[in-house]
Amino acid sequence: MTVNKTKKSKTPIAVGFQGVFGAYSQLACEGYFAAIAHKTHPYPTFKSAFQALIKGKIRYAVLPIENSLAGSIVENYDLLQTQEVTIVGEYKLRVHHCLLGLSGAKLKSLKKIFSHPQALAQCSEFIESLEDASAEAFFDTAAAAKQVFKDADASHAAIASELAAETYGLKILRKSIENNHRNITRFVVIQKSSKKIQHTKTNPNSKSSMILTLKSIPGALHKALSIFAIRDIDLLKIESRPVPGKPWQYRFFIDCNAHIADDPLSNAMRHLAEISEEVKFLGSYKGAK
Amino acid sequence: MTVNKTKKSKTPIAVGFQGVFGAYSQLACEGYFAAIAHKTHPYPTFKSAFQALIKGKIRYAVLPIENSLAGSIVENYDLLQTQEVTIVGEYKLRVHHCLLGLSGAKLKSLKKIFSHPQALAQCSEFIESLEDASAEAFFDTAAAAKQVFKDADASHAAIASELAAETYGLKILRKSIENNHRNITRFVVIQKSSKKIQHTKTNPNSKSSMILTLKSIPGALHKALSIFAIRDIDLLKIESRPVPGKPWQYRFFIDCNAHIADDPLSNAMRHLAEISEEVKFLGSYKGAK
Repeated sequence: MTVNKTKKSKTPIAVGFQGVFGAYSQLACEGYFAAIAHKTHPYPTFKSAFQALIKGKIRYAVLPIENSLAGSIVENYDLLQTQEVTIVGEYKLRVHHCLLGLSGAKLKSLKKIFSHPQALAQCSEFIESLEDASAEAFFDTAAAAKQVFKDADASHAAIASELAAETYGLKILRKSIENNHRNITRFVVIQKSSKKIQHTKTNPNSKSSMILTLKSIPGALHKALSIFAIRDIDLLKIESRPVPGKPWQYRFFIDCNAHIADDPLSNAMRHLAEISEEVKFLGSYKGAK
Repeated sequence: MTVNKTKKSKTPIAVGFQGVFGAYSQLACEGYFAAIAHKTHPYPTFKSAFQALIKGKIRYAVLPIENSLAGSIVENYDLLQTQEVTIVGEYKLRVHHCLLGLSGAKLKSLKKIFSHPQALAQCSEFIESLEDASAEAFFDTAAAAKQVFKDADASHAAIASELAAETYGLKILRKSIENNHRNITRFVVIQKSSKKIQHTKTNPNSKSSMILTLKSIPGALHKALSIFAIRDIDLLKIESRPVPGKPWQYRFFIDCNAHIADDPLSNAMRHLAEISEEVKFLGSYKGAK
């Protein structure tokens, strides 16, 4: 399944993301849909973005699933389990945190640096290098930028994206202030599940995702992974999540480098059904580089 | 390895937990150490509890590792990787959320319900049944109870433990208000790593935990799980966490039902070393029922 990026459309495609304008998630939307006319729509929560998709208010949603430093965004894993959506693409965004302030702001005079706790932690070394400034937790990076603009206080700054600077008319005081530069967030592009979803042609970058709820038998996970191994399918990621109401039982979210249109994976899916309580196939799509 | 609960000690053992007095974590300390003289010490963060242990300020720390509804507490998984500690015990706490208010408070007159966002989510059905009340996020359940006491406003209430009611002199307005009653938090009891740690005798409830950083080869995880499967060792939990600075590479935290003093696991550990970049053994201990 894929997003047809070459087809020219007259009306822009509606694409949803979680957060406010200027969010890293908006950057991911712009990056993935760069070649086609689109309009981005912000949603306050991940769940509301899924619901907008199900109700047909947007055609796609671009949601973060994993960060290379912080790990999985488990809320989105859980929503992939409960909502009827299909993964049709993937995007990887290199996260470059910027320090944003008013046009008259100076590094030495900063007192308060607002951002999401994770962004503050990821820029802790830079913040410590600013003698008089303290880190102030805010619920969202781009919303922190918006707040700094509203405060109109030159001793306030925010850590957010370059796009947030542009969106809220702030000056970039310093670029790439993150401690670890290998900070990448992986997004999935999702669509409401339907029989009409276009299949991609399989290619060497094909990826597939699925959720396995295994039977409670000894060695169940080993058996499931054997089904991939005997067909030379590589696993790219495995994430376990609790089954609600069944303490210490887990669902496994699996990404592998295979396409459902090819024999190895289509056979593996039949084989997985033999040993699972439930198998939910989430989609085959082109993996991001 | 184990905590010798039968040995009578004259000076109480110092046990740390994260949070403020009245926290669910304090309840876990009291539960695990019920049979021996102990004194609990609160720490503001998980990291500070680990550091107190390493510096010898406390003998044990009791930290949440997993909740049956919300999943893993990944920060503690990451600290188990970086800090030199050993798991010596396990405790499972059934979480019963209570609604706490001032002595004159009445359900119908409540306007604001304070608690940690996860506790608010876990009691969403009860909160919705209160017509005029809104949920207000607070950083900690017991701290929310403390705040309600300070506010001295009968229209405020907190969702926290029974112990928090006792600790802050609040009245329990309603017990067990959680949506899902199978809400259990699993805690690990940790000690600073040392050669002197006492080994338990192995028993049918023995559990062991370890962290595997596998070589980047196809089917690495399948090979690792085979090492357990061919020795009839059951896996109880597997959790993947990113390797910092190496995007899309993972460490695996594994719990299994075997003891390092027995041949199957001691052989498996040698075998795992053959295919891993690093194996960190976290301890063998008696699993909680």
